[in-house]
Amino acid sequence: MSGKIRAQLIGATGYGGLGILELLLAHPNFEISTLVARDDAGRRIDEVYPHLAGRCELVVQGPDAVEAGADSDVVIFATPDRVSQQYAESLTARGIRFIDYSGDFRFTSTEDYARYADRHPSIKENTHDAPSLLGRNAFGVSELNAEAIATAPIVGNPGCFAVGIILGLAPLYRDGLVEGGLVAVDGLTGSSGAGKKPAPLQHFSHLNDNVVPYRMLNHQHVVEAEMTLGRIGASSGATVDFIPHLLGTTRGILNTMHLTLTKSMTREALLGLFREMYAGHPFVRVLDTPPTLKGPVGSNYLDLSAFVAEGGKRAVVMTSIDNLMKGQSGSAMQNLNIMFGLPQTAGLERGPLYP
Amino acid sequence: MSGKIRAQLIGATGYGGLGILELLLAHPNFEISTLVARDDAGRRIDEVYPHLAGRCELVVQGPDAVEAGADSDVVIFATPDRVSQQYAESLTARGIRFIDYSGDFRFTSTEDYARYADRHPSIKENTHDAPSLLGRNAFGVSELNAEAIATAPIVGNPGCFAVGIILGLAPLYRDGLVEGGLVAVDGLTGSSGAGKKPAPLQHFSHLNDNVVPYRMLNHQHVVEAEMTLGRIGASSGATVDFIPHLLGTTRGILNTMHLTLTKSMTREALLGLFREMYAGHPFVRVLDTPPTLKGPVGSNYLDLSAFVAEGGKRAVVMTSIDNLMKGQSGSAMQNLNIMFGLPQTAGLERGPLYP
Amino acid sequence: MSGKIRAQLIGATGYGGLGILELLLAHPNFEISTLVARDDAGRRIDEVYPHLAGRCELVVQGPDAVEAGADSDVVIFATPDRVSQQYAESLTARGIRFIDYSGDFRFTSTEDYARYADRHPSIKENTHDAPSLLGRNAFGVSELNAEAIATAPIVGNPGCFAVGIILGLAPLYRDGLVEGGLVAVDGLTGSSGAGKKPAPLQHFSHLNDNVVPYRMLNHQHVVEAEMTLGRIGASSGATVDFIPHLLGTTRGILNTMHLTLTKSMTREALLGLFREMYAGHPFVRVLDTPPTLKGPVGSNYLDLSAFVAEGGKRAVVMTSIDNLMKGQSGSAMQNLNIMFGLPQTAGLERGPLYP
Amino acid sequence: MSGKIRAQLIGATGYGGLGILELLLAHPNFEISTLVARDDAGRRIDEVYPHLAGRCELVVQGPDAVEAGADSDVVIFATPDRVSQQYAESLTARGIRFIDYSGDFRFTSTEDYARYADRHPSIKENTHDAPSLLGRNAFGVSELNAEAIATAPIVGNPGCFAVGIILGLAPLYRDGLVEGGLVAVDGLTGSSGAGKKPAPLQHFSHLNDNVVPYRMLNHQHVVEAEMTLGRIGASSGATVDFIPHLLGTTRGILNTMHLTLTKSMTREALLGLFREMYAGHPFVRVLDTPPTLKGPVGSNYLDLSAFVAEGGKRAVVMTSIDNLMKGQSGSAMQNLNIMFGLPQTAGLERGPLYP
Repeated sequence: MSGKIRAQLIGATGYGGLGILELLLAHPNFEISTLVARDDAGRRIDEVYPHLAGRCELVVQGPDAVEAGADSDVVIFATPDRVSQQYAESLTARGIRFIDYSGDFRFTSTEDYARYADRHPSIKENTHDAPSLLGRNAFGVSELNAEAIATAPIVGNPGCFAVGIILGLAPLYRDGLVEGGLVAVDGLTGSSGAGKKPAPLQHFSHLNDNVVPYRMLNHQHVVEAEMTLGRIGASSGATVDFIPHLLGTTRGILNTMHLTLTKSMTREALLGLFREMYAGHPFVRVLDTPPTLKGPVGSNYLDLSAFVAEGGKRAVVMTSIDNLMKGQSGSAMQNLNIMFGLPQTAGLERGPLYP
Repeated sequence: MSGKIRAQLIGATGYGGLGILELLLAHPNFEISTLVARDDAGRRIDEVYPHLAGRCELVVQGPDAVEAGADSDVVIFATPDRVSQQYAESLTARGIRFIDYSGDFRFTSTEDYARYADRHPSIKENTHDAPSLLGRNAFGVSELNAEAIATAPIVGNPGCFAVGIILGLAPLYRDGLVEGGLVAVDGLTGSSGAGKKPAPLQHFSHLNDNVVPYRMLNHQHVVEAEMTLGRIGASSGATVDFIPHLLGTTRGILNTMHLTLTKSMTREALLGLFREMYAGHPFVRVLDTPPTLKGPVGSNYLDLSAFVAEGGKRAVVMTSIDNLMKGQSGSAMQNLNIMFGLPQTAGLERGPLYP
Repeated sequence: MSGKIRAQLIGATGYGGLGILELLLAHPNFEISTLVARDDAGRRIDEVYPHLAGRCELVVQGPDAVEAGADSDVVIFATPDRVSQQYAESLTARGIRFIDYSGDFRFTSTEDYARYADRHPSIKENTHDAPSLLGRNAFGVSELNAEAIATAPIVGNPGCFAVGIILGLAPLYRDGLVEGGLVAVDGLTGSSGAGKKPAPLQHFSHLNDNVVPYRMLNHQHVVEAEMTLGRIGASSGATVDFIPHLLGTTRGILNTMHLTLTKSMTREALLGLFREMYAGHPFVRVLDTPPTLKGPVGSNYLDLSAFVAEGGKRAVVMTSIDNLMKGQSGSAMQNLNIMFGLPQTAGLERGPLYP
Repeated sequence: MSGKIRAQLIGATGYGGLGILELLLAHPNFEISTLVARDDAGRRIDEVYPHLAGRCELVVQGPDAVEAGADSDVVIFATPDRVSQQYAESLTARGIRFIDYSGDFRFTSTEDYARYADRHPSIKENTHDAPSLLGRNAFGVSELNAEAIATAPIVGNPGCFAVGIILGLAPLYRDGLVEGGLVAVDGLTGSSGAGKKPAPLQHFSHLNDNVVPYRMLNHQHVVEAEMTLGRIGASSGATVDFIPHLLGTTRGILNTMHLTLTKSMTREALLGLFREMYAGHPFVRVLDTPPTLKGPVGSNYLDLSAFVAEGGKRAVVMTSIDNLMKGQSGSAMQNLNIMFGLPQTAGLERGPLYP
């Protein structure tokens, strides 16, 4: 009746589900068919999240109470790894497209997936449940893969750290400018990326005023970053030495990335590369000043700047995003827009919340 | 050409100006004629506030470079006390309506204004510069005064603490339910209400993890609260013992208000009073659970709940708002909508940002 | 050999245990006999709390591996309600004194205890396990009960909110100055009072930048406050309407308390009452300015000030403490000093950490 | 009379002065002769800092009211650059030793000082006022220079970022293990390093929940780090690409440092280097787990760990300190202990404040 695109949201009660729910509620072209979640099934979503009072009264359905894809044009899996894999063949067979937040469909071969799964702390089996679909999926870094995303039956939304690393380094790897393909990255992240479930690392008294480095040189998001950067344009491989730091703040990811250039460049030339690559991409802002963590929070922007050390041979690139927006639900919304031929900015006009 | 309402924004570079600027940019019926500010005149607004990159490139005009009201349907004064007073007669004479953030036009008689000015720490002279206009202005508590706001040439936007106190107690005073007209209020506020200017109390190292009570029993916002509550319906006067507490957080005001009822009531009856009074008011949410500070942040909602002590004679009412939205720019936008016959929610659909 | 007082610490791995452990480590007259805890038994305490590296290498013993009171002059129960009750008779029979952090021994009659237990959210049975010992115990508000604490076999350390309420109102109730015995209290607390165990309310992304009121008018600490204040000096009963507010900060409790005086007083007279009552008490600081949350953090101080509304009949008293020090382990240390005839300040000289 | 060492504190009312004041108050061997400061002269120090109530009632003297070094065994300059230079010759001529917080005496030649001064944003003239004394001073990294510090008439306390960088890399540079002498460092700092003076970058509403990179590749602390690391043992020069990040927290500096090793090493071998170098140094804690920002806060510890990437050729070293302790006043106290032949830990036994 409404002519709107009907989206089913699976994993609706985590922070990832909440984020896309709020974007869909405000979107002119989408409507929600069902909210599905294991936790909180049977409760109204505005009881689970009281800040939704007056905005959404849908009742969360348990995964056994509703069929995946029922009465829907698209399914959004805001779920952990190895959930969407199990539904992929059935949905694809029925012609229902889907987007998945986890690593399940970020890789287009079983070999690539296995490398990721080996690194992931909570994946025990590194064989994929729907291997025949790998290759038909698209990796959802919207600015790099829009063409594939537009038509793929399955989109694998990128990891929150990976988006910022990939977009911040893509033109340099593309042009073969990174000495040895090596970059050292310190990622600073708010706690919301770890989701809604209480845990010692996210316990307020521990995390407040704290910075806690974790998964030293071993974070699974590095896999998709190294594969993407290692294969783009003139790149001959990428090694990302990555240290994630959990901050005592809620939202935001700031990546500071150090590399040696294969040739001496001015800062202006470096910034020019970024301006050229991201011209026409509405969510990438190339700034003269260093990006701040809070700059894009609440919006889908990725803020970026770059600096060159004395001598012009060593560079630092910094990117900042809202980890729950461009790092998760915002990218998902952007990809859904691309999948359905809508403007990338539809439903994503909301600016940052500052101060 | 556009048929949009043209708004001039004076005091554009403070947090109050920023808030309404962002709302106007996203509003379907308004456009900005000029940004005016003493500080940062000559700079692009997105240099002053880098998070606006890609959203607004207007250059801030100095107050001497542009006439108040020029080429505008309405003027918004996001300025301190005693600024709009000086422009009031000229604007009114030219038929240009305006809304003011300060206390200049919250009172409709010189006597009332003098009581407020006596209490204000930065007002030296308590005589008003445009006394003949007092009485033609409307006090901008949208939920109580919509009729007057709709036609008044001048609207005095309410103080951030006052909105939450007034709306949280209005039905109780209206029905003569407050014993002795006395209420004890502890107000908890984020630091952004103090604005953008660095000061010792807002210095990060001092305020972080801190709570600093200030203006003990002496805050100027109490004056408008006592006058409004003391004169509503069956009320026979109001005394508000108010302790503001500055919190180490950016946004939000939570008021906890203790009073004795003139008759015993159940909690349900008490909540019923609020539900009745605010039925049809889209921004007041009466909740079963206590409101939280973060619940409405980023939106124009006022969240409210009430509790009754054993015996039914003593009650606690709590209200929570985003001090920069319902406590300032959101109320201003809501009032502008009312002034121009638009739906109160136009341009204010944005929900809270959580987590 | 050392001549030091040997203390066994039960519940060593919670924040309450950690607090007293650190105080004992630095105390000239105490030494630790055993650390006992159910969680983390078998681990070194500096593995549980890495910030203790180089300061303490004791291994935590499980409760079944070591007898309560073994090889000890005193036992400290930093445990939840209904733990120390079970050991009380055995310890007392063996002549081993103990101090308990929970409500088990804050009350000196079974009737009083039952009222508390009825109110406590996690106590199912309101009958005490060692009723014959109630009456031999002392309630550990050091400034009011030093004489009893000095000789009692059992000390019940007070609740964190209760200490600040009781000490902030004691002289007023004592002198019969509180109209109707009624006070309205808004308590603001850091999250560490809820302990170390992850929970939704203490989840960082939820609590950061938030204020969450809870147990509206129903907190169990009120019981000990009402009993103490209701029976002191000329008091004829106390009613405390108490709203606790959980803050997005780690340490500190600030109580703001509103009451009507039975006679008009100046602010100076009011402050004089406090100065008189707490003269010679090294940890109570009566201030001219309002206390801040951060003022005493890291120390055992209770900061206090009071204000009088126009007319002199309505007063506001504010107290601020570090909830883990004066609100818990600091009070426990102070009580242990009293129990063993040491200066109250021994091992408690550490000042606040500011900024 | 007391036999204590008399210390005059110049610059007593900044955070640096406050820090050493509190350490001196609790120190068994020192006493304060005079507090001197331009700001707040004439006020009691516990009025300037109310958290000192009951701990110190000294009145701050203006710099013109008291002679530098009067009635003192040692002078502590907790002052900005170019203050102690002006007093250096007079003090030294009178045989009064001093320690200085700024860069004035961190360098032992006019050439080295000039390189630093060129880089410093607030030094206009890069010529030193007491050049003849350069060479008689000692650079106060206690763990590296104790012998020189013990006898030097002047000690230049190190910069807060520099301490963590130098101690975290010293054994690697000493043994010639750093490929090309190049290290990329991301430093994360709390806001208190910027001191007490309100400024836009330290404005609460701006900094809360934010991370703000600044002085990109251009911070003046790098100069002393590069000189120290470039000249130690087998080192043949050091280049430190340093990005400081200002965090929305009060205390702490965490440095994450990336480098390529000149030979492949295991993590155990790497940690072994640190354990060997810092054996017997009571304030350096080599940890198995990554250091956290909050781990040492409140104490004088430097926490350190190191990690090796796959292949053993690339390493990451992390250090964490309380920027106001080991990064400033704690190092100063440690150096004063060394200067006067006391145990390094005297007056510095206080452990971290956690949670």
